[in-house]
Amino acid sequence: MISKKQVKRIKALSTKKQRRLSQEFLVQGEKNVVELLNSELNIVDLFATDTFSTKHSHLLTGVNVTNIDAEQLSQVSTITTNQDALAIVEQPRFSMPCQLNGLVLALDDVNDPGNLGTIIRLADWYGVSDILLSERTADVYNPKTISATMGAFTRVKTHRVDLVHFLSKVTQPIFGAFLNGESVHSCKFNTNAIIVMGNESHGISNEIEALISQKVTIPSFGASESLNVAMATGIILDNARRTLSFNH
Amino acid sequence: MISKKQVKRIKALSTKKQRRLSQEFLVQGEKNVVELLNSELNIVDLFATDTFSTKHSHLLTGVNVTNIDAEQLSQVSTITTNQDALAIVEQPRFSMPCQLNGLVLALDDVNDPGNLGTIIRLADWYGVSDILLSERTADVYNPKTISATMGAFTRVKTHRVDLVHFLSKVTQPIFGAFLNGESVHSCKFNTNAIIVMGNESHGISNEIEALISQKVTIPSFGASESLNVAMATGIILDNARRTLSFNH
Repeated sequence: MISKKQVKRIKALSTKKQRRLSQEFLVQGEKNVVELLNSELNIVDLFATDTFSTKHSHLLTGVNVTNIDAEQLSQVSTITTNQDALAIVEQPRFSMPCQLNGLVLALDDVNDPGNLGTIIRLADWYGVSDILLSERTADVYNPKTISATMGAFTRVKTHRVDLVHFLSKVTQPIFGAFLNGESVHSCKFNTNAIIVMGNESHGISNEIEALISQKVTIPSFGASESLNVAMATGIILDNARRTLSFNH
Repeated sequence: MISKKQVKRIKALSTKKQRRLSQEFLVQGEKNVVELLNSELNIVDLFATDTFSTKHSHLLTGVNVTNIDAEQLSQVSTITTNQDALAIVEQPRFSMPCQLNGLVLALDDVNDPGNLGTIIRLADWYGVSDILLSERTADVYNPKTISATMGAFTRVKTHRVDLVHFLSKVTQPIFGAFLNGESVHSCKFNTNAIIVMGNESHGISNEIEALISQKVTIPSFGASESLNVAMATGIILDNARRTLSFNH
């Protein structure tokens, strides 16, 4: 059984303030919790239905599991249907490597938690280990972000930085997504490079634009004026990997 | 002012049943309504705030406009914030061309209205004029679909068909998205081709699989197991256009 105190604690973690105070976050639903159980992240508490516990019993050794029925679980969850499990997890502290290698993403004020989660999932697909987040980019530990990562939050490292300061110090080329850059179909990406994606409404800020070495654009063949930022990230990463795998 | 009868009529159009009965649908929010006003679709009624009507007065000639305040508009809208306008629109009847030319998408039971809307938006970006929808694919006129198209519903033609029957009669090559196909980075697409995308959970059905001439796959460079179907559609269309523009 889950206590009133535990319910309150879970509910509080849907707010950014409480997540910052406790340095914890929620992971919900079968896919994300299974990925969590397979990771090295520290699980503080796991609330799981019988069905989930039976199906994944081999993953539960050493985990503090509280039994919960599906109805109650759906009530405490922030996602609409959760028949499986919810975990309270310690926020990991990722140390910034001395040198960022390979393809690195940098997000300049990506506001929407769902977009951020989708971008983390894409990074995982395209082998991008590190994502730099500007100070106003959405919270990685927002439940909507975690949900959209489909488990990728356990593998991709995010680093909250002063993006202008950070990018002004790096030596690798910085690519940025604009509407007036070179086509990603002809652009040559570098093995070590940073790719900057901008805000949903305003794109990349002027201060960051001044630091971009190569503007890139996804060519349009129709009448639509824009692509969603997560979609654009997927298409740019695909083009980068495609040119890199043909060049090496 | 908007009457109770009109409120009821708008609310009813959020159901598939009423949309089928009346052959009408809702278009909501500034971006989508502006695209609608610039299109040849038949607007039955437009409910607009003063702000919207003033800003877009040049588009309103001949349109049956009812004034509505922002609060009331948000109450009748199915999207969370709507400060602008809502239209009741006649469902267009797209005639199937004798011969489908260029790149054509075919959706085999794509269930989620948001995914369908995003795919229609992508089709518009990549110059795909026609999309074939299997009978169980989501409703194009669901408000979530229309919203996600960002205006592309005014340009891209969708055709609800018996997909197995239809694909068994075509002469152009049929590409299909699978997890075990040829990499889209090396695959040669054809100028005239159909690209099939499958259901969110089950992929392409066995009956359709039997009709595929070329299975294609988006290569992964990391640990993630899957991409969302709309994301996969964007990446495949980008690769198709990229190879076609280099070959011709």
